[in-house]
Amino acid sequence: MMTLRLDLNCDLGESFGAWRMGEDEAILDYVTSANIACGFHAGDPATMRHTVAAACARGVALGAHPSLPDLQGFGRREMRVTADEVYDMVLYQVGALDGFARAQSARLQHVKPHGALYNMAARDAQLAQAIAQAVRDYDRGLILFGLSGSELIRAGREAGIAVASEVFADRTYQADGSLTPRSRGDSMIEDIERCIAQVLGMVRHGTVQATDGTQVKVEADTLCIHGDQPTARRFAARLREALQTAGVELRAPRQ
Amino acid sequence: MMTLRLDLNCDLGESFGAWRMGEDEAILDYVTSANIACGFHAGDPATMRHTVAAACARGVALGAHPSLPDLQGFGRREMRVTADEVYDMVLYQVGALDGFARAQSARLQHVKPHGALYNMAARDAQLAQAIAQAVRDYDRGLILFGLSGSELIRAGREAGIAVASEVFADRTYQADGSLTPRSRGDSMIEDIERCIAQVLGMVRHGTVQATDGTQVKVEADTLCIHGDQPTARRFAARLREALQTAGVELRAPRQ
Amino acid sequence: MMTLRLDLNCDLGESFGAWRMGEDEAILDYVTSANIACGFHAGDPATMRHTVAAACARGVALGAHPSLPDLQGFGRREMRVTADEVYDMVLYQVGALDGFARAQSARLQHVKPHGALYNMAARDAQLAQAIAQAVRDYDRGLILFGLSGSELIRAGREAGIAVASEVFADRTYQADGSLTPRSRGDSMIEDIERCIAQVLGMVRHGTVQATDGTQVKVEADTLCIHGDQPTARRFAARLREALQTAGVELRAPRQ
Amino acid sequence: MMTLRLDLNCDLGESFGAWRMGEDEAILDYVTSANIACGFHAGDPATMRHTVAAACARGVALGAHPSLPDLQGFGRREMRVTADEVYDMVLYQVGALDGFARAQSARLQHVKPHGALYNMAARDAQLAQAIAQAVRDYDRGLILFGLSGSELIRAGREAGIAVASEVFADRTYQADGSLTPRSRGDSMIEDIERCIAQVLGMVRHGTVQATDGTQVKVEADTLCIHGDQPTARRFAARLREALQTAGVELRAPRQ
Repeated sequence: MMTLRLDLNCDLGESFGAWRMGEDEAILDYVTSANIACGFHAGDPATMRHTVAAACARGVALGAHPSLPDLQGFGRREMRVTADEVYDMVLYQVGALDGFARAQSARLQHVKPHGALYNMAARDAQLAQAIAQAVRDYDRGLILFGLSGSELIRAGREAGIAVASEVFADRTYQADGSLTPRSRGDSMIEDIERCIAQVLGMVRHGTVQATDGTQVKVEADTLCIHGDQPTARRFAARLREALQTAGVELRAPRQ
Repeated sequence: MMTLRLDLNCDLGESFGAWRMGEDEAILDYVTSANIACGFHAGDPATMRHTVAAACARGVALGAHPSLPDLQGFGRREMRVTADEVYDMVLYQVGALDGFARAQSARLQHVKPHGALYNMAARDAQLAQAIAQAVRDYDRGLILFGLSGSELIRAGREAGIAVASEVFADRTYQADGSLTPRSRGDSMIEDIERCIAQVLGMVRHGTVQATDGTQVKVEADTLCIHGDQPTARRFAARLREALQTAGVELRAPRQ
Repeated sequence: MMTLRLDLNCDLGESFGAWRMGEDEAILDYVTSANIACGFHAGDPATMRHTVAAACARGVALGAHPSLPDLQGFGRREMRVTADEVYDMVLYQVGALDGFARAQSARLQHVKPHGALYNMAARDAQLAQAIAQAVRDYDRGLILFGLSGSELIRAGREAGIAVASEVFADRTYQADGSLTPRSRGDSMIEDIERCIAQVLGMVRHGTVQATDGTQVKVEADTLCIHGDQPTARRFAARLREALQTAGVELRAPRQ
Repeated sequence: MMTLRLDLNCDLGESFGAWRMGEDEAILDYVTSANIACGFHAGDPATMRHTVAAACARGVALGAHPSLPDLQGFGRREMRVTADEVYDMVLYQVGALDGFARAQSARLQHVKPHGALYNMAARDAQLAQAIAQAVRDYDRGLILFGLSGSELIRAGREAGIAVASEVFADRTYQADGSLTPRSRGDSMIEDIERCIAQVLGMVRHGTVQATDGTQVKVEADTLCIHGDQPTARRFAARLREALQTAGVELRAPRQ
């Protein structure tokens, strides 16, 4: 019998200068992979160094979390950028974060685009290819994290690099496998137990029930844990407990 | 008899977005090491990629040219930064540039701080140590470029990394080995032949005549060529000719 | 008989820090209104002060040229911003430029959005309203410059402020009155005499011939002169001559 | 008998994008003048609009809080800037904030430089003059806030504009009237009652006891209240009570 396993990833290092965001130290106890901001939407150099150190101290795998260049909008505003611009911005940010990893004798495990760049890369094949290419050109051993079923996952596979398909516990899915847009009333799952049930279903059966009732196929390699909400820690603890009870091994892809 | 040799370095990749600066393509034919801007004073990601490619195509050695975070002031305004801040900003920028080098299967040869950071590191031992430490922590094989006789060269040696002492053709020196401040009337040497004579003296004898007439010791590993002036190319061509006639081999330290 | 008149506007003050762009001093002799960059796509505070002074010295009317916050992309990349964000960024930039005008005892005449913001406001009614509202809330006496026939002109009129409809000499038009996208081969008019004929037709008859041969109505209050091209001055001189020969008075709207 | 009066000012609007700082809504109930960040160290355009509205709603007087351009360092790192650069950056930021004030039919009362710029202007006469000049050139009716006894206050008086001398409740003073540097152990007063006693002494007698025991003259027009500390509100409430009991009228200079 194959052991079920799941990676728990979280966006970290999203403070900037005098401004704090998230409870990184607390959430690091619950996740297996850290997506670390690289300065374009958050994360000044000092924060990057501290976050790399904190993740390493907990044995949490390191990942770069590159973004569109938009500090004011926290990388959440889509921009009409070219594939070349995306290639360059990803390479720049992955290299910058890797500077801190190397200085601490650590290695990056993965790259997960942030915010608007993640969403654009989920549906735009050209931008997805640019990201996959940048990751591959930097280091063929890196894993590309993207939305399950997205263009980004497809592009990573075509580029010949490892990928990890991401699923969400607290977002609902549509019949085509995409996430229900946040603008809609039924986009979020508030109830913790329903969230956990959704995750267990995705891990065990590779399916999730869409908002129209149909069963949709998903690949659940890694689950996104939010770290900037007051309930984050409680949810993470409850989720870990449920997954472990169900015999799901929580482990970063490269561990 | 030992062969005399000298590296010719130039600041490159200092365009930003829609703005052009310098004639990089032209000057690359004359230098042996390129100091490439890393985004903090100049050099957006696309410019960094193009500059790395152009340098590689000419066989010019690659170096990172990290700066204080001051795009508006082109990194020329001193800032009261801590040693930790300097360590972090150097690591970030060296990593970012190395992203483009790695993606092009190239390696960085050196790191040379830019503008105000260069000047601060010449006289402030703590900042100099922070830079040397960042370079060493990133890659012990990198060479640190700094002003001949400066705290930065001292810090590099203490950190156990290779250093290259930089001299200037068109700047005058003071009795203590420092450059004459630009605010003084006698800081620049306008006449090309006098510039060349100064360089030849530094390479052959390891000395330069200070403004007060005394002979000052310098180490001349690498010479700074300015690329943003209309006469840059003509000067570079004349200098190369004079050096080659004098039997000085023009070569990057790692070549 | 009514005198025909036309304003000639030009984007100015688009240098930034150490980087120069455009030949502002030269082009100021040919235009009647200056659109001055406000720091978000170009134009640091010193450049703003100098540009305001240079325009005032020539009797050229002052306008703010606000942009999306994108220095690296020169404000040319569309961003998914909300109407509130647009309102705020316009107010910020108009106020900032007005600081320099007030300090020099001058007044702003107009506001013309830059680049991607101009294009977005031409077709998106909500963003157009946000801009018109910001201009009106700042000073009801300001004139809003926008593409002839655009949502921005409509929004300005609805907000009860004065507008100036802009036309182009070197761009072709489509049957719906929009500019032919630059991605198409027939978007630009290279021949100076054809450019001038198009302008004269627009000023005299209020029409332009679209790429499909139909005559399209336009309002020609102000004509955009490009200042960043080597041929800009020659074109401007030839155009002025032709317009004056045709009896068209060249004058800023508020003069 | 002359009524004693004091202005209570606080730095506000120091959030940026997704990052929150300070409890602006809470502290606005306790102060009479608001120093509002203008985008260079904190304060994006949306935050500026909201902060202006919140201050107006409470009848708190509006002031611009311009800074060196250093978002990452929160404007706390000194930079070697020229007097011209300071003049321009102040004008830019005052104008930008005034955009939001004008749009809400409000007027600015004052300008108080932030952080490193405040400290530099306290001791450097040239920079102080540049700030005073920018404030005067923008609007002769504005009040310049500066450290009591500083070069900035002197420069404001020389420029012929109104000034308000600032004192601190929780900082100790040295014999020359300057604040004890934060690097020293005795720079801060932790005890609330000692803070209040210091303020009462300054308001009533125009003196404060320096760390060496001597009595130093101060002018106490306005007192700085910190808004970003957890105890801010409690301290503000206690201070107001003590001042009112002592018959000190709490009022903005222009009210």
